[in-house]
Amino acid sequence: MPFAGGDTVDILRVNMKEKRIVREELPQGLILYGNRGLIGKILSKEVPATCEPLGRHNKLVLANGPLASVSISSSGRVSAGAKSPLTGGIKEANSGGIVGFRLARQGIRALIIEEKPENKDDVFILRISKDATELVDAKEYKMMGTHELVQRLFERYGEKCGISCIGPAGEMLMASAGIANTDRDGNPSRFSGRGGLGAVMGSKGIKAIVIENDGNHKLEIKNRERYRAALKDYINEIRNAPQTSVGYPLYGTAGIIPTISVMGALPSYAFRKGSFEKADEISGERLRELILERGGEGTPTHACMPGCLVRSSNIFPDKTGKKVVASLEYETLCLCGSNLGISNLDDIAELNYLCNDYGLDSIETGATIGLYMDLGFADFGNAEAAKNLVKEIGKGTLLGKVLGEGSAITARIFKSLRAPVVKGQSIAAHEPRALKGMSVTYATTPMGADHTTAVTTRVQKNQLDPNIWMEYSRDLQVKIAAFDTLGLCMFITTAGPKIPGLVVEMLNGIYGTDYTTDFLEIIGKDVIYTEKEFNTKAGISAADDRMPEFMREEPFPPHNTVADIPQEHYDKFWDRSFWKQ
Amino acid sequence: MPFAGGDTVDILRVNMKEKRIVREELPQGLILYGNRGLIGKILSKEVPATCEPLGRHNKLVLANGPLASVSISSSGRVSAGAKSPLTGGIKEANSGGIVGFRLARQGIRALIIEEKPENKDDVFILRISKDATELVDAKEYKMMGTHELVQRLFERYGEKCGISCIGPAGEMLMASAGIANTDRDGNPSRFSGRGGLGAVMGSKGIKAIVIENDGNHKLEIKNRERYRAALKDYINEIRNAPQTSVGYPLYGTAGIIPTISVMGALPSYAFRKGSFEKADEISGERLRELILERGGEGTPTHACMPGCLVRSSNIFPDKTGKKVVASLEYETLCLCGSNLGISNLDDIAELNYLCNDYGLDSIETGATIGLYMDLGFADFGNAEAAKNLVKEIGKGTLLGKVLGEGSAITARIFKSLRAPVVKGQSIAAHEPRALKGMSVTYATTPMGADHTTAVTTRVQKNQLDPNIWMEYSRDLQVKIAAFDTLGLCMFITTAGPKIPGLVVEMLNGIYGTDYTTDFLEIIGKDVIYTEKEFNTKAGISAADDRMPEFMREEPFPPHNTVADIPQEHYDKFWDRSFWKQ
Repeated sequence: MPFAGGDTVDILRVNMKEKRIVREELPQGLILYGNRGLIGKILSKEVPATCEPLGRHNKLVLANGPLASVSISSSGRVSAGAKSPLTGGIKEANSGGIVGFRLARQGIRALIIEEKPENKDDVFILRISKDATELVDAKEYKMMGTHELVQRLFERYGEKCGISCIGPAGEMLMASAGIANTDRDGNPSRFSGRGGLGAVMGSKGIKAIVIENDGNHKLEIKNRERYRAALKDYINEIRNAPQTSVGYPLYGTAGIIPTISVMGALPSYAFRKGSFEKADEISGERLRELILERGGEGTPTHACMPGCLVRSSNIFPDKTGKKVVASLEYETLCLCGSNLGISNLDDIAELNYLCNDYGLDSIETGATIGLYMDLGFADFGNAEAAKNLVKEIGKGTLLGKVLGEGSAITARIFKSLRAPVVKGQSIAAHEPRALKGMSVTYATTPMGADHTTAVTTRVQKNQLDPNIWMEYSRDLQVKIAAFDTLGLCMFITTAGPKIPGLVVEMLNGIYGTDYTTDFLEIIGKDVIYTEKEFNTKAGISAADDRMPEFMREEPFPPHNTVADIPQEHYDKFWDRSFWKQ
Repeated sequence: MPFAGGDTVDILRVNMKEKRIVREELPQGLILYGNRGLIGKILSKEVPATCEPLGRHNKLVLANGPLASVSISSSGRVSAGAKSPLTGGIKEANSGGIVGFRLARQGIRALIIEEKPENKDDVFILRISKDATELVDAKEYKMMGTHELVQRLFERYGEKCGISCIGPAGEMLMASAGIANTDRDGNPSRFSGRGGLGAVMGSKGIKAIVIENDGNHKLEIKNRERYRAALKDYINEIRNAPQTSVGYPLYGTAGIIPTISVMGALPSYAFRKGSFEKADEISGERLRELILERGGEGTPTHACMPGCLVRSSNIFPDKTGKKVVASLEYETLCLCGSNLGISNLDDIAELNYLCNDYGLDSIETGATIGLYMDLGFADFGNAEAAKNLVKEIGKGTLLGKVLGEGSAITARIFKSLRAPVVKGQSIAAHEPRALKGMSVTYATTPMGADHTTAVTTRVQKNQLDPNIWMEYSRDLQVKIAAFDTLGLCMFITTAGPKIPGLVVEMLNGIYGTDYTTDFLEIIGKDVIYTEKEFNTKAGISAADDRMPEFMREEPFPPHNTVADIPQEHYDKFWDRSFWKQ
C-alpha cells in the first residue's frame, strides 16, 4: 500500500554475527507506518515464519511511529516485535517511556537486529548517538537486574539517554521475559512485556540499547497550519473527555478494580473466582490514598512520556516514601494480586519490582504463579511464597526455568489442565467468561491472549451476552491496530469519537498527505491481515483461535458462566466478507 | 467405505466417569478395519480434535485387526491410539505380544476408554473375561513398575492373561510414557511406545487392562479353502524371503547396525555424528554372540507373538544368564546406545529395562537424554549418568518431570536449538540427513517423527539423493497404513511382492469378500487422509511437516549433508492429485 508524502527517516540494521551496522532509508511507501504495522511488514518480508524463535533467522525489531518526531500527547510509543517464543506467531508489544522519542531524534523509525553472535557468551550494548553507533562489550553487565543496569548506563552515557534493556530472564531466554524501556524519570519500568520478546533480545546477545539524547533529526512539517489546527482540537478532546481528563489522571488504570470485581470479572485465585473479597484494598482509590499518605516523589498520577495529558501512571513509594515501582498498573494488581489472593499493595509492588528487575512480564508471571499455587504447591495469599517463586525465576533455578516459560509449559510439566492461555500466552486481567467481548478479543487476535489488542471491558453493553461482541471486537481490533501502528497510546481511544479524524488530520499536516478518517481502517486491516498471514505460515490455524478448554467448561463464579461463544463465530471471525468494501 | 461380508465382533466401551461398560457391535461397514484404521475412524467421529489430550474429551482406543481371530504369522498386533499429548495430533502405536489375540478371543475388535474418574486419585484395573468385565480398584498397584505389576496380575488372574499396562511414567502423565503389552512369555516389553499414549491411559485412571485367556469367540471362516490356499502361499513367501527367513531370525533388527554406521546414518552423540566408532560392539552379531555365550533362556531369536515365523525378537540375559529384556531392538540400541555414546550391551539393556519398568518410550527417552548430555549436563558414554537420568524420570523428580516430557520440552526448558523432533516427537534411529527417504517419512507422516510409518532405510536406492524419495515414501506410507489397519507386522512387507495379494486373499477367504490387491491401497489412503483431517482440525498444518531447523543447517558427518529436500515437496506431499484414480 503506497502512501504519498513524508520525509526521510531511517532503519538501522544491526547484524550480530558480523557486528555490522548499516543505516537504510525507510521505503517511502512505508512513511506513515511505524510500530506494530511496520514490524509486521518487516517480519513478513524478512523472517521465515517457521523459524526457531530463538534461532538466528528470527529478527528483533524496535520501532516508533510517524508521530514520534513531533510532540503530541500519547504518541511516540515504542514497539518491540519478533516471532514470539511464547506463541510461535508474530508478536508486537508496545510501551510508553522515552525510547520512542529518542529514536526519532536520531532519525530512526526502526531498528532491525538480526543473526546472533557466534560465541553464545558474547553480550553487547548497542549504543546509538549522533556521532557513533556501535556495539560495546557488555560482559560487566551480565545477569544484572534492570534497575542497577540503567543506573550504570546513565552514569556511563548520560542520564538523558533512552534505554531498552533486558534483565536476567531475557539473558536466560525465558519465554516470559520482556523488554524494559526507561520512562522520563529513568525507571526501567515501561515494558514491552508480552510474548517473550526479552528472550529474543537475549538470543541476539543484546543486553541493552542505549539511545543518547544528542539526536537532532527534525521532521519538516509539511503543512504547519493544518497540523496545528488538528493538534489544538486533539488536545481539547483529551482535556474534555471524562476518562482521559478525570478517570485516568485520578486513579490510573487501577480505578476500575472495584467495578470489575463487582461485575465478577476480576481474575482471582488462579482464575477460579471473578470477585475478590479484598478488591477495595487494591483499588485505585486505595492506591491514591496510600501514595498521598506516604508523600512519595510523584503526584498520585504521573506521565510516563513527555507531553502526555492523560497521566494514567503512578509512582508507588514504600513506607518511607522511597520509590518502589512506577507504575503499579491494573494488570499487575490483578495477576500478582487478586489472582494470587494477595491484597497488600506493598507486597504487590515488591512482586512488580522483582518482575521489572529480572525483566519479566508481570502478567505471564502472575498467571503462572497462580497456576502453581492452584496445584497446591504454595498457598494463595502467601506473598512471601510468591516473591520466592519470582526469585526462583530470576535466579534460573530448575523450578525457575520451568515457571519462566509461562503458564502453558508450567501446566504441562506439573499436569494442570487449567492453563489460562490462548496460543500459549496467558490471559490478562479481564476474565473472558464474565466479559464476553474479551473472550472474542483473546480468541481472535493474532497476538495470543493479549488484552491490549481490543479492551472491551469498559464498554456499556451486556458483558454476559455471548452474541453481541463479534463486530464490536473486530472493529476495535482494527482501530487499535491502526493506533498501534502510529505509536499512539490505546487510552486515547477513550477520548471521544473525534480523535481518529484528528489523528489523520495531524498526519496530513505533518506529512503533506490528504487522507480521510477511513485511512485508519485501511491500515488497521492491512496490519491485522499481514499478521494473520505470518501466523498461518507459522502454523497457527483456526484451531488456535479458541478459549482454553477449562474456561469452556468450568463455571466461573459469581455468574457461573463459561466461555460459551460458539466456536464457529471465531472460525469465521476474520473472514474478509465481513467488511463492506 | 462400506465393505461386504464378515462376522460379528464387538467394541467394548468403558466410561471411566460413570464406571459403565457396554458392548456394542462393530458396525458391519468396518468389519475389515482394525488397529490404526479403526482407531482413526473412532477418534475422528468421537473426539474433538482440539481437546486437551489429557482431559476428559480424549479417548484411548485399543484395537486389534481382522486377522487376529485366526492364527496367521505376523498378524494380530495390538494398537493403541488417542490424541497425542506429545504431538497434539492423532496417534496410533502398535506392538506385538498376545494382547491382540486375547482381545480377539473375547470377541473384541476395539476397546474405547472415555471420560475420566472424578477423583483423580482413583486408579483401576480393567479386567476382561468371558464371564465378567469389570473395573477393579488398583490402589495397591499405584506407581508400581511394569515388571512387578504383571507378575502380581498373573498371580491374581492367571499367567495366560494378556496385559496392557502403564508404569509410573504413565501414571504421572508424562508425554514420553508408553503402554506396555505382554508377550507370549509374560514380559511387559511390547510397547505401544510413541506419542505419550501411556499418559492418556494414566489420565483415564487405568493402570492395566487384563484380558483373561478364557475367551471362546471363534470367527466363522466363510471360505475355508480360499483362506487355506492363500495362507499356505503366505507362509512359503515368508519362509523363502531372505530378510524374513534369515536376516531377522538370525540377528533381529540389530543386524543392520554396522551397515547403518558405515552408511553414516546411525544417530550418535545426540545426532551429531552418523558413524559410531563402536558400532560393532552393539551390532546384531555381537548381540547374538553374547546371548549364545551366556546361554540365556531363549534362543538368539525369539517370537514375540504366537505363530510368528519371522522371530526377529531376542531375549537378552545378564552375565548370569538371567533375562534382562526381551527384546533389545535396533531403535533402543541406537537411541540409548550410540546416541549417548554408550557401547556396552549390558548398560543399554539396563537402560531398556528401566524404560520398560517405568513405562517409558525408549526412543523419546534416549533422544532426550542425548540432548541433555549435549548441553553439557552429563558426559557422553557415561552409562551410570544415563541410568540415573532415567531414574529421575521414573521417580518424577522435577528434573525427571522435564525430561519425561521428551526432547522438545527439554530443549525449551534448557534452551537447546537441537531438539531432533517433528511435530514435537523425537526422530528415531534413522538419521534423516543421511537417509533422505526417512526425511520424507518423518516430515510428512501424520504421526510425528515415527519411523514405523515407512522405513526406507534398507531400500537399495541412493540414500543421499534428495530428489528420488517422495513417491517411494508416499507409496510405502499408504501400504504400511493398510498393514497397520489389518494388524500386520511391518516386517512382513519385506517378504516379497506377493504378500499384499495373499493378505487380501486370506481376508477374502475369512470374511467372504472378493477384493483385489488394490483394496490395500484404498484403505491405506483412507486411513492416512482420515488422520490428516483430524490433524488439520487439531491445528497441525503444512508448517509442521518439516525437518527441525538444526537438521536443515548443521552438516551431519561423515557425509556432511543437511536435510535439504525443498520444503515445497513436503507442502504438496499429500495433494490428492498424486494418485492416478
